[in-house]
Amino acid sequence: MEIPSVVIDRLPLYARVLDNLEQEGQTVVSSQELGIRLNVTPAQIRKDLSYFGRFGKQGRGYNVSRLLEELRRILGLDHQWRMALVGVGRLGRAILGYEGFMPQGFKLVAAFDSDEATIGQELGEIRIDDVANLETVLEEQPVDIGIVAVTAEEAQSVIDALVGCGIRSILNYAPIAAHVPRDVQLRRIDPVLALQSMTYYLKHRQKSPSLTG
Amino acid sequence: MEIPSVVIDRLPLYARVLDNLEQEGQTVVSSQELGIRLNVTPAQIRKDLSYFGRFGKQGRGYNVSRLLEELRRILGLDHQWRMALVGVGRLGRAILGYEGFMPQGFKLVAAFDSDEATIGQELGEIRIDDVANLETVLEEQPVDIGIVAVTAEEAQSVIDALVGCGIRSILNYAPIAAHVPRDVQLRRIDPVLALQSMTYYLKHRQKSPSLTG
Repeated sequence: MEIPSVVIDRLPLYARVLDNLEQEGQTVVSSQELGIRLNVTPAQIRKDLSYFGRFGKQGRGYNVSRLLEELRRILGLDHQWRMALVGVGRLGRAILGYEGFMPQGFKLVAAFDSDEATIGQELGEIRIDDVANLETVLEEQPVDIGIVAVTAEEAQSVIDALVGCGIRSILNYAPIAAHVPRDVQLRRIDPVLALQSMTYYLKHRQKSPSLTG
Repeated sequence: MEIPSVVIDRLPLYARVLDNLEQEGQTVVSSQELGIRLNVTPAQIRKDLSYFGRFGKQGRGYNVSRLLEELRRILGLDHQWRMALVGVGRLGRAILGYEGFMPQGFKLVAAFDSDEATIGQELGEIRIDDVANLETVLEEQPVDIGIVAVTAEEAQSVIDALVGCGIRSILNYAPIAAHVPRDVQLRRIDPVLALQSMTYYLKHRQKSPSLTG
């Protein structure tokens, strides 16, 4: 049975909430409580989880640790994933220094740039390679995920190159809607979309006549 | 009538797809076609848009330009929003250089740091202020949105300070689930969540026995 991608997209949020509940010492949770924490209806939660078998007991709620463990297994969060970064400018360096990846099983093992002065630099355990050698380096040292932190102009060709190296999961920080083959997963870090989801509240809170519209 | 936040969250995506359609020269779009582009059911799209009045004609689809204009007005995307950045390290500098904000009406007008060597530097039109002067500077030069690019340890106190200055929309890049009052909108740039929504496909595609689980 094919599981809808919207369901898959919600599962990491479920896992995160369950992780918080477990840390708070809670052992059982109802679909109602999960729903409130996630802003999703309890019926939706029961339906989403039903794709993966029977987790809850009627009227008894879900066992937090067991459900979390199952979700981690389903999502592959119990695995360590290897990542390569392309683009080691300001943003790329910030990504190399990001403290949130390792605790969640995501490890940067390679980094690439096209700038002569940057190639050969060592940042932590990583030596920056020439992006022209992308294929050779990734053949010797395969990765699961590519992270793209180049400019908007360069992003599509870098993504094409990563796909050409057999990478099937790409996280794109560049401000473009890139194209990938159907069997490649692409996610975009999109601060503008996040900002645009807040301006509604700004606009409808402020009643200043100086606002447009 | 209060509009559910999940509906508000989807509207910027609708606006983006409509913008693409308009640029491609398409004048009318059905809820079916919007649904395919957005991975949402046509019924959901009709329901979401019904909160804001009658946009489509039965069986005739939506007028692309008119719907886009309406969504822009509803979301406040026809307005220019002023933003302040706190944290001008590698990530902060990348954010200051991000080319995606201005075309969408988001303008960085102030930046703050606590590092002596960083305070006073000028980056483009912006002079970096001491974060100790946050309140004074933002009183003289009010902003709508705060962007947080400090470390995980500093993030909550910076967010508290921004809220204390009356800011009601915050974009947090630090890897923490921060707390804000109910009337403050908080969005988090969360690359780990994006990565975790892809590992399912990596895991279920690769059948290598070396994988855990």
